[in-house]
Amino acid sequence: MPRIAVGLQYHGGAFAGWQAQSGLRTVQGVLEEALARVAAQPVALIGAGRTDAGVHAVGQVAHFDADAERSARGWTLGANTELPPDVSVSWAAEVAASFHARYSAESRTYCYLIHNRLARSALAAGRAAMVYQRLEVEPMRAAAAAFLGEHDFSAFRAAECQSRTPVRHVHALAVEREGDWVLIRITANAFLHHMVRNIAGLLIAVGRGKAPPQWAREVLASRDRTRGAATAPPEGLYLWCVRYPDALRVPADAPESAWAMIPGLGAFRAP
Amino acid sequence: MPRIAVGLQYHGGAFAGWQAQSGLRTVQGVLEEALARVAAQPVALIGAGRTDAGVHAVGQVAHFDADAERSARGWTLGANTELPPDVSVSWAAEVAASFHARYSAESRTYCYLIHNRLARSALAAGRAAMVYQRLEVEPMRAAAAAFLGEHDFSAFRAAECQSRTPVRHVHALAVEREGDWVLIRITANAFLHHMVRNIAGLLIAVGRGKAPPQWAREVLASRDRTRGAATAPPEGLYLWCVRYPDALRVPADAPESAWAMIPGLGAFRAP
Repeated sequence: MPRIAVGLQYHGGAFAGWQAQSGLRTVQGVLEEALARVAAQPVALIGAGRTDAGVHAVGQVAHFDADAERSARGWTLGANTELPPDVSVSWAAEVAASFHARYSAESRTYCYLIHNRLARSALAAGRAAMVYQRLEVEPMRAAAAAFLGEHDFSAFRAAECQSRTPVRHVHALAVEREGDWVLIRITANAFLHHMVRNIAGLLIAVGRGKAPPQWAREVLASRDRTRGAATAPPEGLYLWCVRYPDALRVPADAPESAWAMIPGLGAFRAP
Repeated sequence: MPRIAVGLQYHGGAFAGWQAQSGLRTVQGVLEEALARVAAQPVALIGAGRTDAGVHAVGQVAHFDADAERSARGWTLGANTELPPDVSVSWAAEVAASFHARYSAESRTYCYLIHNRLARSALAAGRAAMVYQRLEVEPMRAAAAAFLGEHDFSAFRAAECQSRTPVRHVHALAVEREGDWVLIRITANAFLHHMVRNIAGLLIAVGRGKAPPQWAREVLASRDRTRGAATAPPEGLYLWCVRYPDALRVPADAPESAWAMIPGLGAFRAP
């Protein structure tokens, strides 16, 4: 059976997260139904990242197996016709049988977007976290440095996290400000449950001056979730992209195109 | 009674347009209710532009009179607390009694945003018009030139338009492409009902190669609405800004900030 990889975009606001759960509207559930109609057979979908309720994606990647012979264009347009407006397929491609959306991934990048202004914005509602108090970016950057490299991230892990190990390798963590917008961008081999939102929550507390930058190192060393800041809200979080080994030839969205999708990112320059 | 001007942002998707209508959820109606609670007295709001159902605003301007003594910050934050997520106040300012949001305006600028790609985007849903067929920008620009200056725009006017005269002066009309996005930006002294969406509809038809650029001049000269293209859908349209004489000292949103609000505009450079 050919294996098909798809690039996915969604607004998480009306979904109970990625993972299929009986009786709930989930991204995986809605996609499996739509793809089953295009494939004319049941489809089991495996995603690279299991995003939480309310979390968005511009570059989620998933795979499934299907007997149906469809062109890449046929899968993409067929699925988009069957899907509701808040989820879409950006591309589809036949991949090797050894490809696995989750286990083949080398790294994931998430963006956390904050609208940092006294007056809220109707057009940013549900698409960025709102922080009224002025955020200072330099202390946030100093705090962020603590997370780089391989660490035990137990202090940034949700109680319900099912991962076997709390060790993750953070490759990059940038904090940028443009006008009223602050962007946290983080790349790691993989993430624990709530890890990005817990890191964002700590960085926001530091940016507001509620704690000094060295607090990041202390919380990380404690391995104790109760020592950290509040989990930042889901509406600011975007699964930005997933990287695979070049040899697997998985298509990637044009970064400029993804960049253009999110209100607020227009203030930044595409990297 | 002091006169207060406010800068407004809204997502038009869940509104039956700007103008208050009994039994319908309108931007004016929702704002008048919220401002009345802040003012502790009934408020009558007058807007610079009466946007249609589904049309958005990043820089709508309106005014009202109220006895209540509130600071600019008090009006802004008070209103935002009372308003639903899809409408917000960006700024408030006391203005001269001679100021009138509609009659004092020198010009309005609207942006019409098109996502021009084969695969639709979940994050752009309800925030840009989707055109699957490739748009050629050069013919669109050639057609756009026909609209510059003072003309009788009867051929681009909705049947229900209540304006006394069909003559409007178009100051600027730009068509730009960046990646998968096409942006039409138009400034005029004022607009007839559906005028921007009817012009956008014609430019889209020309961009798709369904008619040559000179068709714009022919339709304009005909003064006959039935000669033009289909009205472009409301979700791509944004009331971008309203200009007043400098002497009136009306605040304006920082253009970069407005630029950042709309998905897709991140692909363009702020003007």
